[in-house]
Amino acid sequence: MKVTVVRIYVTEGKHVHDAIINKLHDVEKVRGVTVFRGISGYGQSGKVHSASLLDISLDMPVVIEFFDAPEKIQRVLDHIGSMVKPEHVLTFTAELS
Amino acid sequence: MKVTVVRIYVTEGKHVHDAIINKLHDVEKVRGVTVFRGISGYGQSGKVHSASLLDISLDMPVVIEFFDAPEKIQRVLDHIGSMVKPEHVLTFTAELS
Amino acid sequence: MKVTVVRIYVTEGKHVHDAIINKLHDVEKVRGVTVFRGISGYGQSGKVHSASLLDISLDMPVVIEFFDAPEKIQRVLDHIGSMVKPEHVLTFTAELS
Repeated sequence: MKVTVVRIYVTEGKHVHDAIINKLHDVEKVRGVTVFRGISGYGQSGKVHSASLLDISLDMPVVIEFFDAPEKIQRVLDHIGSMVKPEHVLTFTAELS
Repeated sequence: MKVTVVRIYVTEGKHVHDAIINKLHDVEKVRGVTVFRGISGYGQSGKVHSASLLDISLDMPVVIEFFDAPEKIQRVLDHIGSMVKPEHVLTFTAELS
Repeated sequence: MKVTVVRIYVTEGKHVHDAIINKLHDVEKVRGVTVFRGISGYGQSGKVHSASLLDISLDMPVVIEFFDAPEKIQRVLDHIGSMVKPEHVLTFTAELS
């Protein structure tokens, strides 16, 4: 079965990912979501964020990954567009088995 | 070189990922495997799992990622089919260099 | 907008990822980079690396992920080729929105 995979890039500090996950879960009913925290990275600001044991609360990069049927994903992305920054959403096609 | 990338979605609690990695390593001899733990997510059950410092042993989402030649991956997926749930395996094509 | 997504597989112990991120940030000016640490994995050596709370400093698998316009990524990969091992760089096409 062909699916569209989505990866949304946010940062942790603003808790945007909680709001997005709740919407994907409660409203959009996407079949599954996984959220990953990076250990380092930089984005729009150009500032590199890195984790250390003393520094765990930094504004770390977070990726929200999910997949579903292509038409459903298109609708979901339309609905959550205002919650994510432009050019922070990757989509690609994969086979689900 | 064209490869097929595989991402298998499991949860950590049942230690399924250890069994899968051992099989990929010892029997299937896949060229490399990386396992990622999510910080939050939900799947079939619909229940959202989230990590906190006090709560690190929760049944967290885990992704097993590997890639190899397309024919080899097809054989490997046939062999490990009984170890993974239906609709929990993503595959897509990438270029390895 | 079509982008090329890159995933570079390194291990943490040698701090190669710091050098690569600095180059991507300071010299190549790639639009964004996220670095993920695996909790388990194996590569060329065949030795499985696994994290435990007591064992956090092990030589863990690390993935450096970034994306940008295809022509730019091609140039970047040419420039950092000497910093990565052969057959440790995956690229695939995705849509950025």
